Parts: sequence; structure tokens; C-alpha cells
Amino acid sequence: YGDDGIAAVLAEGAAIVLTSTVGIQAVEVVAKRLADDGIGLADAPVSGGPARAGQGDLLVTVGAYPDVYEHCKPVLDAMASNLVWVGQAPGKGQSMKTVNQLLCGVHIAAAGEALALAGELGLDQTLALEALMSGAASSFMLGDRGPRAIQAYAGEEAEVKSRVDIFVKDMGIVTSAAKSVGMAVPVAAAAEQLYLQGLSRGQGAMDDSSIINVVTPKKG
Amino acid sequence: YGDDGIAAVLAEGAAIVLTSTVGIQAVEVVAKRLADDGIGLADAPVSGGPARAGQGDLLVTVGAYPDVYEHCKPVLDAMASNLVWVGQAPGKGQSMKTVNQLLCGVHIAAAGEALALAGELGLDQTLALEALMSGAASSFMLGDRGPRAIQAYAGEEAEVKSRVDIFVKDMGIVTSAAKSVGMAVPVAAAAEQLYLQGLSRGQGAMDDSSIINVVTPKKG
Repeated sequence: YGDDGIAAVLAEGAAIVLTSTVGIQAVEVVAKRLADDGIGLADAPVSGGPARAGQGDLLVTVGAYPDVYEHCKPVLDAMASNLVWVGQAPGKGQSMKTVNQLLCGVHIAAAGEALALAGELGLDQTLALEALMSGAASSFMLGDRGPRAIQAYAGEEAEVKSRVDIFVKDMGIVTSAAKSVGMAVPVAAAAEQLYLQGLSRGQGAMDDSSIINVVTPKKG
Repeated sequence: YGDDGIAAVLAEGAAIVLTSTVGIQAVEVVAKRLADDGIGLADAPVSGGPARAGQGDLLVTVGAYPDVYEHCKPVLDAMASNLVWVGQAPGKGQSMKTVNQLLCGVHIAAAGEALALAGELGLDQTLALEALMSGAASSFMLGDRGPRAIQAYAGEEAEVKSRVDIFVKDMGIVTSAAKSVGMAVPVAAAAEQLYLQGLSRGQGAMDDSSIINVVTPKKG
């Protein structure tokens, strides 16, 4: 992106749709360099995971100048079930994705701590998960990762739908972004440490729900 | 509960329905003392807040011996839209509520960090909240507290629906319970510190969504 590899073969007036989560500053630097070559950049990170990507069922949050956004909209519409133009410059898509990942990363870690605590307190975790999801404690991530976290706690190898090392990367982007604006995010930082501990315990390629075994390692 | 105040005037075979969140050990001690006097205890903490309590729309998670549970069930049914008998002894209701509050407390704190970060990164917070709630980042608490957190960030005094000092108490119960079973809960502990910082900044009686101003104090 932006080096001699791709930019050299693109015609002036072309635009690149960048769907990766790479951080705010990285995109701003690349966008500026591409703009000097007359190439637009739609900063369009996606959320939803591989399974939903295959069905075109993704949240796509775009940062792009208005002309680039219009140019890329047909492609973006085809990818996204939910397309949000969050800002009129590259970098704003990354900003939005960073905020999104803060919540996702914290919610998965909280689900791990909560279901581990339920287990350690002698509750039936499956019954507990059902009760939790019926009320104010519910989150998308608790419902999605909860069953696999319970499997992992029981010592089973849960199916890998999204890896621990993805959140090592993404929570790193979150805490760096917060630092860049002079903000402390202690809850997100604690979650980042859990993912790093998972990585150091050899869980990098395991499902992110396996983070439950970082707080209850004897079950790992 | 269990001292000369109430227990003295109850007949043998009576049962008390305890709806407060007071911690696991506290309930176990009281239940034992009441049992010695022939009085049952249904440990039945409620979730849902004052507004839903008025409509009988509460999650009630009960720990009680089977005979006490049956005895109290008509009363519990009237209170609860969702009644879950989580364990056959007093204390299990508190255990379940503790797990529930871990998630609620972390989710509110995460919503504060995320929406504050959105603001500091120059995103439209209301648009961001809408996008976040449409995907994997969503939680009940983000949807419920999010709009008031945005108000608080803007320097407005949001309506008080649930107070910061409630979560100072509840997150204290959470981290104590985890410690009692030899477990670390770093994400919940970080959230607890945010509530304590809110308390020390004079926000104890403010809405818990005001925790957003702990991480972005210049707006406070």
C-alpha cells in the first residue's frame, strides 16, 4: 500500500479501498503519499469476521474524502450490510474501527473473567450464561464467545473463529491511539494485558474465547 | 436481617426474601443464623434498576434450599419477568449477581472509554454509537448508558438513573469474590478503579455513565 508495489501500476484518479485494521497514523501517512500520486484512499476497515464477510454481512466504517467515497461507493455497498461514512478523510475509518475494537476486546475479556468466576463460584456456567444474556449484562460478544469460553474452561479445544493474536494487534492499536490523544484507557489496557498473557502462554492461534484460561490457568 | 430486629418477630417456618446485593459471604453467614431459628432465606438479588422494578420486569436469580424456594416462589414470580433458580443454597443468588455485576460494571466503563476515545479522535459520538450498536461491539449497557455518557462528555448533567457509588459497592463485591476463590480479574479491577476515581472526584451521586469524565476530565 503506497510503496512501489501497488501504487506504480495504478492510473491517476484510481482509488484504493483499504479494509484492514492498521491504525490511524499508518493510514494517514499512506493516504498523503497516495494523494501526491493522484490516487484516492478509502479507509474502510470491516467488522464482522470471516463468516459474515462471505455473506456480504459486514459493518464497514469509512473515512474518505467525498469524491473518493462516491467513487468507491458501489464496491463498498457490495461488501457491507451496514455502511457508515464516519468521516471525510482517511484515518476516520481506522478511528472508528479502533473504538469498535476497544469494546470488542474488552467485552471478550470480560466474558472470560465473568464465566471463569461463575465456574470458580460453583455456578452452572451454561445456566449462568443464559441468565446473563437475558438482562443488563448482555453483549454481542458474551453471546457469541460465551459457549466457546465455557468449552475452553472445561479443557476442550474450542473451534477457532477469531484468534487471540488478532486482539493482541488490535488492542495495541487501541492503547496507542488513546495515548496519541493523551488519554488513559485502563480497562482496555487491562484487557490488552490478558491477550498478551494469552500469547505468552502459547494461545496466539487459539480462539479468542480461550482468554478465559488466562484467569483460570489450572484448567488450561 | 438476621439480627434481633427482624428475626425476632418472625414465626418459625417463615422465610425472608433478600433482594439486595450484599455479597456471597454475608448471605451465607446470615442464612446459617436464620436457619438456626427455623427461618428460611431466599437469596434473590434483582437486576434491572428502579424503572423496571416498578413494572415487575426484573431478572431475579435465586439461591435457596428447595423447600424455601417453593415457599417463596409466588412472591418471586410476581417480582420477576425472568426468574432463574441458580443454586440450591443461599449465596448462589449472590454469586450469580456478582458475575452479572462484573459484566455490567465493565461494560459501562468500556462504553465510557470507547465514547471518550471517539470524541478525542474527532468522531461524531452519536453516529459512532449508532454504528457500534449495529455490530459486534454492542452491549445492553452501551445502548442504555451511551446517550447519557455523550451528554456527560459534552458537560451536561445527565439524568441519574443509576449512581456511580452503586458500582463502587458492587465492583468491590466482585473483586473480593474473585480474590476469595484465588482468581485475578484485571479487567474488572481496572473498572473498579474508574468508579473509585469517579467517587473521589465527587461523582458518587451522579449517573454511572458520568464515568466517561474520569478518562476525559477536562470535560468534567
